[in-house]
Amino acid sequence: MKVYLVGAGPGDIELMTLKSVRILREADVILYDALIDKKVLDFCKENTQKIFVGKRKNSHLLDQNEINELLLKYAKEYKTVVRLKGGTPFVFGRGHEELSFLNSHGISVEIVSGVSSSTAVPESFKIPLIDRSYSDSYRTITGHKMDIFKEIVTSFHPRENLVIMMGAHNLKDIVSHLLGVGFLPKTPIALLSKGCSQDALKISATLEKISQKDSGFFDYVRSLTPLIIYIGETLNAADSIN
Amino acid sequence: MKVYLVGAGPGDIELMTLKSVRILREADVILYDALIDKKVLDFCKENTQKIFVGKRKNSHLLDQNEINELLLKYAKEYKTVVRLKGGTPFVFGRGHEELSFLNSHGISVEIVSGVSSSTAVPESFKIPLIDRSYSDSYRTITGHKMDIFKEIVTSFHPRENLVIMMGAHNLKDIVSHLLGVGFLPKTPIALLSKGCSQDALKISATLEKISQKDSGFFDYVRSLTPLIIYIGETLNAADSIN
Repeated sequence: MKVYLVGAGPGDIELMTLKSVRILREADVILYDALIDKKVLDFCKENTQKIFVGKRKNSHLLDQNEINELLLKYAKEYKTVVRLKGGTPFVFGRGHEELSFLNSHGISVEIVSGVSSSTAVPESFKIPLIDRSYSDSYRTITGHKMDIFKEIVTSFHPRENLVIMMGAHNLKDIVSHLLGVGFLPKTPIALLSKGCSQDALKISATLEKISQKDSGFFDYVRSLTPLIIYIGETLNAADSIN
Repeated sequence: MKVYLVGAGPGDIELMTLKSVRILREADVILYDALIDKKVLDFCKENTQKIFVGKRKNSHLLDQNEINELLLKYAKEYKTVVRLKGGTPFVFGRGHEELSFLNSHGISVEIVSGVSSSTAVPESFKIPLIDRSYSDSYRTITGHKMDIFKEIVTSFHPRENLVIMMGAHNLKDIVSHLLGVGFLPKTPIALLSKGCSQDALKISATLEKISQKDSGFFDYVRSLTPLIIYIGETLNAADSIN
């Protein structure tokens, strides 16, 4: 009778919130994503139904309509249905579409915020999103659709950082576009791979250096997902101490 | 001998992470901010020293140098020192300055990410940061310094939202600037006051309507801190169901 859209955080199980764990313990059914660490499911009761509806790049196990219909079906049958998502429900991830669909069918929905990987992954590498010596703003943007990316990022400001999600396959185009609209060649860039996990890896460079890489490098970067591309002068703050 | 920079989340105690609670339980000393709910301190051991170093607008109890020196002093004396901050340590909040200072004195520092109010407060009002029908990007920016704000936000894109922190006292100037650089008069705006608390309050309008308000309104808005100013077409997604 109620659906909880729950953010599971950036991957490290200890970065889950108290509320998300409480709701998991009460859940009759859980529908969960590909990015979720399976250990998270150990918080559930023994008889909780656990249903993988994950999306992986280019191979959605279920499409969004199917997920919506499943949520509706279980919401009608059970008291506590959990839709568990990586990060937090309303930063990418289609949480709001699920809310709209369920509300339009009279199902009550509660949002349980999580730690977004967009902030926690840079933090896990000791990179600030905002440090007052360097920055006043950061943009969280998808690198998946280059046409929109190019429309939105049209100029450079040294006191704004870019946090680009889902852009691994477009790295070459992204860097080329940024240099074209006035980002300085020496602007630092960090590729943050599998952040908040034991396989976390950081590659540091400048836009100019990335622009000179060969196709083997870009193939390699595509293998590093989930990847956050962080661009901005603030990386100099981080590099000065790390 | 070790300092933990810990994010306490957006105010709702249940949105604290498991890790933050574990570290609080181990803490010998805690230095905490104005935005922290005092109930958070109940997680500590009985003999934990709890030191308020809070900042409130225009009246810093201690300046940043004094906080740095206090952290260093306690780090030399105790095993586990916690610097507890609202939100998450590296989204505003000077966490990275503290890290740099402590590292330069040989003190080891660990970052414990929290839920940022920049994402959780919109979510608490069921407002998505990104919804694929409406948006691909959002900018998290301080509204405290208008000169920099004007330099950074120089054009409008309908698929990008603005999340403006600490801008309550500059609302009139912010709206006037945005209309001047091409934001549409009908662009929706929401003033999100005291989000994730029992006093949470949302004011919905358009840029045009805000621009026509009298000084009494802007005085009132200044009383609503902490305030997040959310601007963007994505508010239409939220309003269609809320």
